[in-house]
Amino acid sequence: MRAAVVSVLTIGDELLSGEVADANLPFIAGELSPLGIRVARHVTVRDDYDEIIPEIRALTASSDLLFITGGLGPTSDDLTCEAVGRATGRELVFHQHLADNLEGFFSGLGRQMSPENLKQAYLPRGSTEIPPTGTAPGFTLEEQGCLVVVLPGVPREVEHMMRSAVMPLLEERFSSGEVYLTRRLMTFGVGESDVAGLLSDCIGAGPVTYGFLVQMGAIVVKLNAAAGDREAASRLLDEEEKEARARLGILVFGADGESMEEVVGRMLRERGLTVAFAESLTAGMAVARMANVPGSSDYLKGGVVAYTAEAKRDLLDVPAGLLAGGAVSTAVAEAMASGVRLRFHSDLGVSTTGVAGPGPGDGDRQPGTVCLALADSEGLKSWEVRLPGDRVLVRHIATLAALNVIRLHLEA
Amino acid sequence: MRAAVVSVLTIGDELLSGEVADANLPFIAGELSPLGIRVARHVTVRDDYDEIIPEIRALTASSDLLFITGGLGPTSDDLTCEAVGRATGRELVFHQHLADNLEGFFSGLGRQMSPENLKQAYLPRGSTEIPPTGTAPGFTLEEQGCLVVVLPGVPREVEHMMRSAVMPLLEERFSSGEVYLTRRLMTFGVGESDVAGLLSDCIGAGPVTYGFLVQMGAIVVKLNAAAGDREAASRLLDEEEKEARARLGILVFGADGESMEEVVGRMLRERGLTVAFAESLTAGMAVARMANVPGSSDYLKGGVVAYTAEAKRDLLDVPAGLLAGGAVSTAVAEAMASGVRLRFHSDLGVSTTGVAGPGPGDGDRQPGTVCLALADSEGLKSWEVRLPGDRVLVRHIATLAALNVIRLHLEA
Repeated sequence: MRAAVVSVLTIGDELLSGEVADANLPFIAGELSPLGIRVARHVTVRDDYDEIIPEIRALTASSDLLFITGGLGPTSDDLTCEAVGRATGRELVFHQHLADNLEGFFSGLGRQMSPENLKQAYLPRGSTEIPPTGTAPGFTLEEQGCLVVVLPGVPREVEHMMRSAVMPLLEERFSSGEVYLTRRLMTFGVGESDVAGLLSDCIGAGPVTYGFLVQMGAIVVKLNAAAGDREAASRLLDEEEKEARARLGILVFGADGESMEEVVGRMLRERGLTVAFAESLTAGMAVARMANVPGSSDYLKGGVVAYTAEAKRDLLDVPAGLLAGGAVSTAVAEAMASGVRLRFHSDLGVSTTGVAGPGPGDGDRQPGTVCLALADSEGLKSWEVRLPGDRVLVRHIATLAALNVIRLHLEA
Repeated sequence: MRAAVVSVLTIGDELLSGEVADANLPFIAGELSPLGIRVARHVTVRDDYDEIIPEIRALTASSDLLFITGGLGPTSDDLTCEAVGRATGRELVFHQHLADNLEGFFSGLGRQMSPENLKQAYLPRGSTEIPPTGTAPGFTLEEQGCLVVVLPGVPREVEHMMRSAVMPLLEERFSSGEVYLTRRLMTFGVGESDVAGLLSDCIGAGPVTYGFLVQMGAIVVKLNAAAGDREAASRLLDEEEKEARARLGILVFGADGESMEEVVGRMLRERGLTVAFAESLTAGMAVARMANVPGSSDYLKGGVVAYTAEAKRDLLDVPAGLLAGGAVSTAVAEAMASGVRLRFHSDLGVSTTGVAGPGPGDGDRQPGTVCLALADSEGLKSWEVRLPGDRVLVRHIATLAALNVIRLHLEA
C-alpha cells in the first residue's frame, strides 16, 4: 500500500501576520505518527472565500486525508463551514440538536444567545458530525476519495475531537498494519555529538532507528520503532531503551518529555527529603522551576537569591574573607549551599554562582563560568563548568544543572 | 494599484513533524507590514522535489512576490536551489567568488571544506545573488511577473538578508506610496474588554485604527496608521498614542514590545533605587524576571523564596502570630515585604503570597487569590486580587503584578 498523502489547511488571518503561532499542526502531526503517516503539506490562508475555496478543491484532489482547522466560530470572519460546502458542492443543513446544544450552552452561562450563533447549527449535507466540546461542532466528509476532517481552531477542542472521534476513524482506514512508536530519552550533561558517540554501536544495528533533538540544554534521543501491533513496537522500544540507557547511564534524566523538575521532585518526594536553593546567576530560576510542579511545596522549602556580596554574607553566611576573592568560585558556591541549607533547615542545599555575560564578570571570570554546589548532612560537593551560549542560554543551562546535581546526588 | 499577492514557501521535513517551529514567517510578515503588504498564503512542504517543484510553479503563477526559505544548505536533503532551477527552467551556474568565500569560511575555522559544500557556489542562471552571511547565499529572480526571493532557513541569516538586501528592493517595487506603521501600547491591570471600553471614543474616530492582543496577562493595544511617508505615519501615531495614553493612564506600562522588567528596571536605575523580593506563590519568578535584563545587578539585590511558614518567620521575620491566621493575607504580604527590605538593606521590598491552585490553599483561600505588598522607607502598601486562569497563568500574572506595583509606586 502506498503511503497516505496528508495535508493540513489552517485558516485565519492572525496566523499569517505572525502574531499567533499555530499549535494544531504539531499536535496533529504527533497524533498521526504512530500510524506511520506524515504530513506532506501545510497550507495557511486568510479568512477569505477566494483563498479558501480553491485551496480546499486543490488539496482534496491531491490528498488522501485533509485536515482543515479554524474558522468554525460564530462571527462574520468564520467562513470555513460555508467554504467547505461551496468547494464540495454541498448545501448547509440545519441540525436541531446542535441548535439545542447552543441554547443550553448560553443559558448555562446565564447569557442570551445572539441569532448569529445559530450559524454553528449548520453542517454541509452528507457530513458526519463530531460533537462540539464548546459551541463549534467539527465534521468529516468524503470528497473525491479524500477524507476531509474539519476541526475548530482552539487547540483544546482539536485535541479532544482528535482523540475521541478522529483517531479511531483514521486507525481503521489508514492503518498500514504497522504501528509506529517513538520514545524519547531526555539527557543532560554533554552535547549532541557526545550523546550520538556513546550510542554509535546501537545506531543502525537493529530495527529501531535513532534521532536527536537539542532542546535548550537537554539533548533528546528519539527511538523509533515499527511493528505489527502496539505491543510489539513497545517491546522493541523497551529492549532498545535498555541498550541505550546502558550506554548513556546517568546522562538520562527522564523519558517521553518528562521535565527535570518533575524527575527531581519525584525523587525528593520518594526519599522524603526537602531542598532549598541559594542562587546568584540563576536568580530564582532554579527555585521557580522546581515550583512549577503542583504539590512541590511538600519538598521545596524555598531559597535565597543573593545577587550581591552583601546578601551572600548576610543571608547565606558566606564568610566575608571568601568573598573578598570574588563571588564566582567553588568555595563560595559551597558556602552558599551550606548556608541556605542551615537557614531553611532543609535536607539539601543547592547553589549557583557564575557569570552569565555579556562581558566578563566578577574578578574577570569568563562569561559562561558557573560554579555549583550541593550540601547535605554529610558534607559538600561542588563543580565548576564552562557553559556555551549567550546570557539566556547560560542561565537556562545553569538552572537545569542546579536541578541535575540533586538527581546525580540522589542516584549515586 | 491592486495589493500585491504575497506567498511564503517554507521547505523542510522538520517543520511538518511539528518538532521545530518556523520563525521566518512571523519575521517576514512583520517586515512587510510597513509596506502595507500582507502575506496571503503560507505553504510548508517536505524536502522532496516532487513536492517542491510543483509548489514553486503554482505559487509563482499566482503571486506577485514569493519568499522561499530553507533547504539552501550543503547536505543531500537541501534541494531548494536545484528545485528553483528546475521549476523555472534555469540551469545552475557556478560562481567562483562564492567558492572562494566558502574556502575562506572553512579555512577561517581551521577546517577542510568537503567537496559537497561546493554545491553552495551554484545559483540559477539569471538570478541576483544576496551575499551569504554564513555559507549559503540567497538570491532573487523574476519568473512570470513574480519576484522570487530565496533565503536560507536560519532565522539570523534571514533577518540579515531581509534588512540588507531584500527590503530596499521591495520598498522600490511594491511601495504603494503609503507607509503603514503599527505602534503597540503594552497595558497591564485590567482585561481586554475594559481596555477597549476605555478607548471607545477613540476607536473609529480618526485615521488610526485599533487592534487588541492578549499576551499572558498583558493586553497589547495596536495602533495602525497609513500615510504618504514614514514621518507622517509616525506623526499620526504620536498624536493617537497621546490620546490613547490619556484614556488608559497608568495602565500603559510600555510601548512596542518593551517588557515589564525593562520598564521597571529603567525606572529603578533612573531613581538610583534598589529592590528585593519576598516570594511565596511566585517562587522566584519575580526576581528571575527582573534578572533577565543585563545590568540588573545594579538595582536588584535579590530575594527570598519562602514557601513554608517557617521560612517566612525565620528568613523574613514575619511574626508567628500573623502566620497562625494563614499565609495568604495582606498583613502577611506586608510583613514579608518589610522583612525582605530590611534583610537586604534595599530601598524597596516587594512580596507575593497566594494560592496558585489547583485546589484551595492555605485556610481554604480560593485558587487565584493573591496578596501583594510593597515596603519603602515611608511605609507599606498592599493589595488583594483574584486572578483568572490555571496554576501557570495565575503565577505568571502574579509575577507581572509584583513588578507592576513597583512601577505604580514610582510613577505615583
